[in-house]
Amino acid sequence: MDAEPNPAPHARLRLPAVPRVRMDGFWGGRIATVRDVTAPILRRRCDEAGMMDQIDPSRPVPALRIPFQNGNVTTQMFWDSDYGKVIETAAYCLAGRRDSALEATIDAVIDRFAALQQQDGYLSSWYQRMQPGKRWTNLRDCHELYCAGHLLEGAVAYFQATGKRRLLDVMGRYMDHIAGMFGPAPEQRQGYCGHEEIELALVKLFRATGERKYLDLSRYFVDQRGREPKYFELEAVARGEDPGVWHHGTAEYNQSHLPVREQPKVVGHAVRAMYLYSGMADVAAEFGDDSLRTALERLWDDLVAKRIYVTGGMGPSASNEGFTADYDLPNRTAYAETCAAVGLVFWAQRMLGLSPQARYGDMLELALYNGALAGISLAGDTFFYENPLESRGDHHRWQWHRCPCCPPNIARLIAAIGTFAYAEGDNELAIHMYAASEAELHLANGRVTLTQATDYPWSGDIRVAVEPDRPRRFALLLRIPAWSRHSTLAVNGEPLDLAAITHDGYARVEREWAPGDVVALGLDLATERLYANPAVADDAGRVAIRRGPLLYCLEAVDNPGVGLSQIIIPRDAAWTATFEPALLGGVTTLHADALAEQTADWDAALYRTEPPRTTPMPVTAIPYYAWDHRAAGEMLVWLRAG
Amino acid sequence: MDAEPNPAPHARLRLPAVPRVRMDGFWGGRIATVRDVTAPILRRRCDEAGMMDQIDPSRPVPALRIPFQNGNVTTQMFWDSDYGKVIETAAYCLAGRRDSALEATIDAVIDRFAALQQQDGYLSSWYQRMQPGKRWTNLRDCHELYCAGHLLEGAVAYFQATGKRRLLDVMGRYMDHIAGMFGPAPEQRQGYCGHEEIELALVKLFRATGERKYLDLSRYFVDQRGREPKYFELEAVARGEDPGVWHHGTAEYNQSHLPVREQPKVVGHAVRAMYLYSGMADVAAEFGDDSLRTALERLWDDLVAKRIYVTGGMGPSASNEGFTADYDLPNRTAYAETCAAVGLVFWAQRMLGLSPQARYGDMLELALYNGALAGISLAGDTFFYENPLESRGDHHRWQWHRCPCCPPNIARLIAAIGTFAYAEGDNELAIHMYAASEAELHLANGRVTLTQATDYPWSGDIRVAVEPDRPRRFALLLRIPAWSRHSTLAVNGEPLDLAAITHDGYARVEREWAPGDVVALGLDLATERLYANPAVADDAGRVAIRRGPLLYCLEAVDNPGVGLSQIIIPRDAAWTATFEPALLGGVTTLHADALAEQTADWDAALYRTEPPRTTPMPVTAIPYYAWDHRAAGEMLVWLRAG
Repeated sequence: MDAEPNPAPHARLRLPAVPRVRMDGFWGGRIATVRDVTAPILRRRCDEAGMMDQIDPSRPVPALRIPFQNGNVTTQMFWDSDYGKVIETAAYCLAGRRDSALEATIDAVIDRFAALQQQDGYLSSWYQRMQPGKRWTNLRDCHELYCAGHLLEGAVAYFQATGKRRLLDVMGRYMDHIAGMFGPAPEQRQGYCGHEEIELALVKLFRATGERKYLDLSRYFVDQRGREPKYFELEAVARGEDPGVWHHGTAEYNQSHLPVREQPKVVGHAVRAMYLYSGMADVAAEFGDDSLRTALERLWDDLVAKRIYVTGGMGPSASNEGFTADYDLPNRTAYAETCAAVGLVFWAQRMLGLSPQARYGDMLELALYNGALAGISLAGDTFFYENPLESRGDHHRWQWHRCPCCPPNIARLIAAIGTFAYAEGDNELAIHMYAASEAELHLANGRVTLTQATDYPWSGDIRVAVEPDRPRRFALLLRIPAWSRHSTLAVNGEPLDLAAITHDGYARVEREWAPGDVVALGLDLATERLYANPAVADDAGRVAIRRGPLLYCLEAVDNPGVGLSQIIIPRDAAWTATFEPALLGGVTTLHADALAEQTADWDAALYRTEPPRTTPMPVTAIPYYAWDHRAAGEMLVWLRAG
Repeated sequence: MDAEPNPAPHARLRLPAVPRVRMDGFWGGRIATVRDVTAPILRRRCDEAGMMDQIDPSRPVPALRIPFQNGNVTTQMFWDSDYGKVIETAAYCLAGRRDSALEATIDAVIDRFAALQQQDGYLSSWYQRMQPGKRWTNLRDCHELYCAGHLLEGAVAYFQATGKRRLLDVMGRYMDHIAGMFGPAPEQRQGYCGHEEIELALVKLFRATGERKYLDLSRYFVDQRGREPKYFELEAVARGEDPGVWHHGTAEYNQSHLPVREQPKVVGHAVRAMYLYSGMADVAAEFGDDSLRTALERLWDDLVAKRIYVTGGMGPSASNEGFTADYDLPNRTAYAETCAAVGLVFWAQRMLGLSPQARYGDMLELALYNGALAGISLAGDTFFYENPLESRGDHHRWQWHRCPCCPPNIARLIAAIGTFAYAEGDNELAIHMYAASEAELHLANGRVTLTQATDYPWSGDIRVAVEPDRPRRFALLLRIPAWSRHSTLAVNGEPLDLAAITHDGYARVEREWAPGDVVALGLDLATERLYANPAVADDAGRVAIRRGPLLYCLEAVDNPGVGLSQIIIPRDAAWTATFEPALLGGVTTLHADALAEQTADWDAALYRTEPPRTTPMPVTAIPYYAWDHRAAGEMLVWLRAG
C-alpha cells in the first residue's frame, strides 16, 4: 500500500496528494492559521463540549447533553463525524509539516475510537453508548453511516499524512462490517444513509487501499438511493412508525425521492445534496458511468441557473437547511450553511476531474473565496454556521455551536486547498486556481514542478515557472475565468492567441516544455457590477460588486452615518481598488462615489408622499469573506442600483 | 342599572352604544357577514377544537390537546378568552338584530361558565380543570387575568345587547374575588397580568354597573405594573424558578420593565402593548390623569414615527409576537398580528375620546381598513393571524388556528364598528369615520340623528343629514384626514372656510342646527405614492400606493407573467381608479402604466453584468384588505419605484 492514492481510471484529471503542493501568499497564511490556531482549537472544543465523554469507553456513559429535537434527532448523534473532520484537518496540517504535539492529541482520539470498536467491527459512540440495541434501525434520521464516512475520511487522510495505519485499519474493519450488512443479497439491508457522505469516503478508501469492495459498496449506496421500495419507508414501518410522518416529511429532504440518475433538480438539505453529488462524481470517475455524469450535469445546471447565491452559498431555508423554490434567495435570512459551500467546492473539484471546464472552476473558486471562507474568522478561532448576504449587525461568528459541523469542515478544506489548485492527467497538467504556490505534479511518465508567483486574488498577474524533470511534451491547461474579460497569455515572453487555444474556459498549451520555461498569464480583475435575474425578487433593483473571484460587501464601519440601504450606487459609478496591507489581514478595498438618501428632512415622519432626497457619499467595500471582524453593524452585499 | 354605559367624566368624547348606530354600505355588508357567517362559525369552531371539553364541568377532564411550548405555556391556557370574544361578537350582532338561534348557543356557553364558577367566585377552566391547585401562581405566563378580562368584556356586551345578566353576575362575582386577591394591602398580591386586557375590561364593567371598585382595581393594575419590587420576579422565586430565565427573558415582553408612566417606547408583545395602552387611556379618561395621557402621547409618537407598518400593522417579529428595533419593518416575514391592528383601533378610539385629533382618527382608519380587515376573508369564514406585506403565494387564510385569538377579535371589532364612527360629548358630536350609516347620538341635553349618505371609502363625497330632536346649538366635529389634500365643506349648500375652522384635523361647525340641515363634505381620494423613511431598509427604493384610507397591493392574478418585484412604477406614472362592483365584493381598482424587467434574454443566467431590460406593462392594484381571495400567487405592497 502506498500513501499516494490510486488514480481514477475514468477521471481525466486527478488531485495531487496534499504534501505535493505548498501554498504561499493568500492561502499560505490561511493554512498556517488553520495549522497553528484552528486545528488545536477543534480538538479542544470538541472535548470541552463533552464529546469525548460519549466516545471514550473507559468513562461512564454520560447523560444526554443536547435535547432531542422534533422528537427523534439530536445533533449529539453526529459527534463521531466531528472528530472525523478534526482528525482530517489535523492530517492535512501534518502532511505539510509534522507536529508531534498535534499528532499526539490526534493519536489519543484515535486510541479511544479503537478502544470503542466492537469485536464485529461496528463503531458508533451513539449507538454503542447512548442508544444500545438500536443500531441500523434508523438510517433515515440518525447519521450512522454519515459518522462512519467522516471517520473514514479522517482515517485515510491521517494514514496518508503520517503513515500511521491504526485508524485506517479500524475503519477498514468497520467498512467490512458495513459491506456485510448492506447490499443486494436477501440477507442484507437494501439501505443507504439519510445523510450522504459515506459514498465519497468509500471511494477515498478504495483509492488508498486498492480494495475494490469499498468502491463497489459506494456504488451500491449511490445506485440504491431512491429506488422502490423505498428503504426509509420499510425501515419506518419496521420501527412501527408511519413512514410519511417525520421531521421533514418529504423524501426530497435527503435526496431519496427518486433514483439518483432520475433526479431533475437540486433539492432538500443542501449539504447532503453536495456530498451525494460528490460521491456520484467519484463513482462516475471510477466506472466511466456516463448516466451518472449526465445526471450530475443536469443537477449542476439547475443549481447554478436557479438556486445559488451570488456568494456561492446555497440552501436559503433554515427549516430544511436547504433548497426551497427556484429563485428563492432571501438575503437577510439566508441560511447558506458554510458546510454547503464547502460541499460545493468538493463537487466542483470532482466535475473538473471529469472534464476541465471553467464553469466548474469558476464556481469552485466563487464558493471557496466567498460562501465558504466567510465561515471562519481571519484569526481562525470563530465560525459562521449561516452566511447571510445582509445583516443588521446582529449576526456574528461564534466560538462553538450545538451542531459543530462547519468549523472542522472549512478547516479541512483550507488545510488541503493546495490540492484543489492543481490537477494531473496522463499527459496534461491543469492549474484550476491561481495562488502563490509550488506543486510537484505527476504525469503518466514523469514529473513536473509548477511554481506560481502571484499576488492573486489581489492581482491578476500570474507567472508560472514550469520545471519538468527533463524536457517533455505535455499540455498545460490554464483556467481562464469567465469574469476575466481581457486575458493575456505568453510563454517565455511570446504572446499566445488565447481565443484559439481556449476551450470550455481552459487554455491548452501543448508543447515541449523544458526547465526554465515561464508562462505569464494576465487576468482582468476589473470591478464588475452583477445583476440578478429579475426572477430573484430579493435582489430586484440591486447590484452586487465583484472583483475577480471575490464578492464585495459594504459594512457600516466603513460607511458610517447612514443605513446601508440608504446608499444608492449610480450606474456610472467608477470603482477604484486600493490594496490595504494593514486592513483585515491585507485586502483590496473598493471605493466609489455613491448617493445617500437623507433622513434629516423627515422630522418624525415614517411615511410621506415626497421621495427621499439624496446627497453624495463616498463608499468603501470590502471582500465578503472578511466581514464581521470590526465594530458590529450592518453588512450588505446587494446594493441599491441607481 | 342601565344598558347604556356611564359616561367617562374626563373623556371629552364618548362612544355611542352599539344599537344606536346602524351601518349600511361598506361596513353594513361586512357586519351582515359577521352576523350571518362568522358569529355562528366562531362558536362552532371553538367547540370543534375541543374547547368546550375543557370548560364544561359536566364532562370528564380532557387530556391536553395542544402541547406545551417553551416548557411552560400552551395556547390552551387562553381558551376562556376565546369564548369571551365569541360571546362579545355575538352580543354586538344581537344588539343590531336579535336572533334566537344565535342567542341560544351563547346562552348555552354562558350556562357552562356559570356551572364552572367556584363558590368563591373563581372561574378559570385551565386552573380549575387542567392545573388544579396552581391558581395565581404564574400571572406572568398563564393569562389568568387576561381570560377573566375577555370573559368580562363578553359579559358586559351580552348584558347590554340582551339585558340578560347571568354572565355579568358571574363575572361580577369573579371580579369581586379578584379585587380581594389583588391590591396594596399586605395580605393581597401586588400583581398584575402578564397579558394586559383586564384593565380595559374592568373599566367597561364600571361603566356598565357604576361600581367604582372595578375602576379602582383597573387603576391599581395600571399603576402597579413595572413597579419595584417586580411582581413577576417575586412570583418566579416563589415558584422556585430563576426569574431571569423564561421563554421571553425580558420584562419588556409584557411591558412590565418600568412603571407605565415612565415607559419611553412601545416594546414587547404588540397585542399586550395595545391593550395596556387602551386600558391606560380608559383610566386617564375616568380620572383626568394627565400623567398617563402624557405617557400615552409619548408612546403613540414612538409607534407612529418608528414602529408601524404602512398598513397600520405592527410587531414585525414572530419570536416575541411584537416589536423589535426602530425601523425594523420586514415585509415578507412581517408578523403584524391581526389582533395587534385590532388593538390599535381600540387604543386610537380612546385617544380620540381624550382629544379629537385627526392623527388618531387617521391611524384608527388605517389600522382598521388594512392591518385589521385583511385578517378576515370577505366571506367571513377564514382568517389571517400574520399579515405580511409581501407574499410569494404561500400565505393563506386558515379556518382555525392553534391560537385562535384573531378570528373573534376582528369579528367583534367589525360587529361594533359603528360605535367607532361617531362620538358624543356634552355639547358636541364627532364623526370620526365616514360611512353610509345612521346614528342616534346624545348630547348632555338632547338627541341628534346623523345620517351619512356616501360611497366611502370608494368616494370622498359625504352627505350628512343632521336631525336634532329640536333646533339646538352644538358643535359638529368632522375629521379631515391628512391624506385629503383638497377638502371642501358646505352646510346647506353654503361653503365654509375649512382652514379657518379646522384644528388638529377636525373641522368644527358650531351653529344652531335644525332638522333638515345637510352637511356636504368632499374629501380628496387622489391616489398617492408613499415613501418610507430611508431608515426603513426593507422599503428602500420602493413606494406604496394609497387611496384615501386604503393601502393597495399588487396580486399576481391581476399582473400575470412576471414576478411582482420585476415591476417598476415610474415616478410619473398616473394612477386611474375604476370601481368594479363584481370584483371582491365591489372594490375600486387602480391602474397605471409601469415597466417590467424581462427574463427572456437571460437564458440560464442567474447573475450577469448587463442590467435587466424593461418593457411597458399595465398594472392593476387592489385594496390590501382584499388580497388572497383568488388564485394563489404573489402579493406585494411596497412596489419598486422607478
